[in-house]
Amino acid sequence: MANAIVVGGSRGIGKAISDGLKSIGCDVVSTSKNELDTSDLSSVKNFIEKNKTTDILVLNTGGPPAKEFDSVTEEEWQKFHNQLFLGFCLLLQKISINDGGYVFLISSSVIKEPNPRLVISSAYRSAFSSVLKILSKKFAERNISCVNIAPGPINTDRTRELFDNVKEFEKTLPMKRLGEPEEIGNFVKSIVENKIKYLSGVVINFDGANSNYVF
Amino acid sequence: MANAIVVGGSRGIGKAISDGLKSIGCDVVSTSKNELDTSDLSSVKNFIEKNKTTDILVLNTGGPPAKEFDSVTEEEWQKFHNQLFLGFCLLLQKISINDGGYVFLISSSVIKEPNPRLVISSAYRSAFSSVLKILSKKFAERNISCVNIAPGPINTDRTRELFDNVKEFEKTLPMKRLGEPEEIGNFVKSIVENKIKYLSGVVINFDGANSNYVF
Amino acid sequence: MANAIVVGGSRGIGKAISDGLKSIGCDVVSTSKNELDTSDLSSVKNFIEKNKTTDILVLNTGGPPAKEFDSVTEEEWQKFHNQLFLGFCLLLQKISINDGGYVFLISSSVIKEPNPRLVISSAYRSAFSSVLKILSKKFAERNISCVNIAPGPINTDRTRELFDNVKEFEKTLPMKRLGEPEEIGNFVKSIVENKIKYLSGVVINFDGANSNYVF
Amino acid sequence: MANAIVVGGSRGIGKAISDGLKSIGCDVVSTSKNELDTSDLSSVKNFIEKNKTTDILVLNTGGPPAKEFDSVTEEEWQKFHNQLFLGFCLLLQKISINDGGYVFLISSSVIKEPNPRLVISSAYRSAFSSVLKILSKKFAERNISCVNIAPGPINTDRTRELFDNVKEFEKTLPMKRLGEPEEIGNFVKSIVENKIKYLSGVVINFDGANSNYVF
Repeated sequence: MANAIVVGGSRGIGKAISDGLKSIGCDVVSTSKNELDTSDLSSVKNFIEKNKTTDILVLNTGGPPAKEFDSVTEEEWQKFHNQLFLGFCLLLQKISINDGGYVFLISSSVIKEPNPRLVISSAYRSAFSSVLKILSKKFAERNISCVNIAPGPINTDRTRELFDNVKEFEKTLPMKRLGEPEEIGNFVKSIVENKIKYLSGVVINFDGANSNYVF
Repeated sequence: MANAIVVGGSRGIGKAISDGLKSIGCDVVSTSKNELDTSDLSSVKNFIEKNKTTDILVLNTGGPPAKEFDSVTEEEWQKFHNQLFLGFCLLLQKISINDGGYVFLISSSVIKEPNPRLVISSAYRSAFSSVLKILSKKFAERNISCVNIAPGPINTDRTRELFDNVKEFEKTLPMKRLGEPEEIGNFVKSIVENKIKYLSGVVINFDGANSNYVF
Repeated sequence: MANAIVVGGSRGIGKAISDGLKSIGCDVVSTSKNELDTSDLSSVKNFIEKNKTTDILVLNTGGPPAKEFDSVTEEEWQKFHNQLFLGFCLLLQKISINDGGYVFLISSSVIKEPNPRLVISSAYRSAFSSVLKILSKKFAERNISCVNIAPGPINTDRTRELFDNVKEFEKTLPMKRLGEPEEIGNFVKSIVENKIKYLSGVVINFDGANSNYVF
Repeated sequence: MANAIVVGGSRGIGKAISDGLKSIGCDVVSTSKNELDTSDLSSVKNFIEKNKTTDILVLNTGGPPAKEFDSVTEEEWQKFHNQLFLGFCLLLQKISINDGGYVFLISSSVIKEPNPRLVISSAYRSAFSSVLKILSKKFAERNISCVNIAPGPINTDRTRELFDNVKEFEKTLPMKRLGEPEEIGNFVKSIVENKIKYLSGVVINFDGANSNYVF
């Protein structure tokens, strides 16, 4: 039975992944922000003390507030640098992933098509995507797969906060709806369940045909 | 029970996908080159006469011979333009995909990182990837998902033809092995089985962390 | 004094490049569609008979008609395969580029962000971009630089054909205007004039900040 | 006569750009690390006090030490987050770019093809590339062009530090040589000199055909 740690696993996409992994018998540690707040490095260090190894690590975190570039303060850059980048780096430096394991990153479609209102998220999630790519090559020797899932608009509390009128927003999307967290939860579950390992070092845009670029 | 057409489904990746879909109860028409040769437009037209609709269409075809740019003849460009591009276009123009269905393209990692020895494949598979991206947006309204899977080095007859010494080649790969067709077969199967629809309009590099680009 | 061939050099972007190269003393053969029609392979072969070497080759051609995928006929695919891909391949196979030379491709921003109305152009220009990337590595040994310029909306006859109301369209662009052919003409001129050689194997989107992707 | 600020302008690529801009009559403030150290936010704030507007801003900085992921300390992440990301953000938030101006970022080819030895640079330069893309759209309305130049291996002190044997390294490159800082200096100079404005929101890989991806 595989062990899994799902950061930000108490709701939304993280919860759906946590539920998916439990449904196939994984032993899942699913953290809420109270248990592990990646914007607070002492919280990260406390967590690392108690969780030294895992088979599956899912790196997921809520998004920063919607702010345009000019209004982001120095303190906000620093805080979300911790939350979206440095906290994840410390986790990956200190928690040992077992041979044959998985690292899943839940980033965002803004890593490729940045969003002016989400400049903090666009920048730091891009930065961490670069780190995960580098690690995918190193981890490959131990049969550990690294998969970066970049969700577009998903039906979560987060998305409902960002849009005044979600119904109207949905009409602008190619599929006329938000994605469901369970679609991502089932996707992650299937990869683990079927022992698909050769899918690694890849960014998978998960956005209902919403992005504009092909390659 | 869903119907599926798997082009190039008699061996390699196509067969693995065909087997995966059969295992979840799909009614699969799996074609060999004798039954449907996309380099021969009359063969394509014959096939279209007999197959007018499907729930799932898997576009897959063997690769052209390894040739460098200077040695490709006009006739070869024309032939593989048919095989890798135009034949697929005719299929997509004439076979109706049912609402809620899927189109899977098995392209190649050369669409993003072209290979001098595989210039024909690099070029025409890129071209068709562009077509599929465009269609993904149109099909989204009818809940049809388009997924472009771009395999890296997979353990198929094709790969064994391309390399004199596959064992030595494997040592150069991040995972020290080729991917298995079943990993892709299971991947496609899982998407259909779990009714994952929001994964659309995307290129998924399936290459064991072998590519160099992150985004 | 360098020799240059500018395909499609009688108007629009091609003419601006031709003018730019002439202004720095290049000896320019600038072809109209009457002189060299890349959709007609016999025209290509006639041209090759008379033009066997050059220092600078600029591959540029008008776009196909605006058509959506479903309405493109087999004959149209074949014709524009010639015009946008195969004709250029034959030119590059048969015209020798001198050491220290340049190949410029004028493609389009649709190679990365395909346009449903321009599916033919999106597909075949992507295909040829792949070929040029492959050649850039081979040509590097002879100090030949390959630069793929991918224009967005430029102030040409072509753009005016595509839009009923260009003025309204311009308001939707980040810079509130089309690009000018001379901006691209001057860009190409400057690279040659300053002997910038290390810019090679690259796609340069030239679109006034209009594209959505960052990487 | 245009004013320009070239950060990191005392040597290497920065100096070449500074020299290029001076050669066309720009009034250039070219800073060494003593004058403006972007890793030290108080240095950044001092600089901002004295430099409130400019026509041209060139954001350039030396690279962090070569370190693999596991050995980077928390303090190093923080320091280079300042140097490669936050310092540049503060400059762009506080220094007003005049209408019709330019922002040039000198990033690195590692933003697209990350390098395990340069994980810090790969990550934070990607992050800032995202910010510049976002700003390019906003600045477009005031005719300010943002150009992200991503150099590959260039003949600078930096490159000579990274490689024990530069001569051997050069043999592995497509052009069998490093790029020269002057090629980039002349490139920037030409864009300004020719008032090329429609080139904006773009990453320009400047690497002598060394990268592997096409799009």
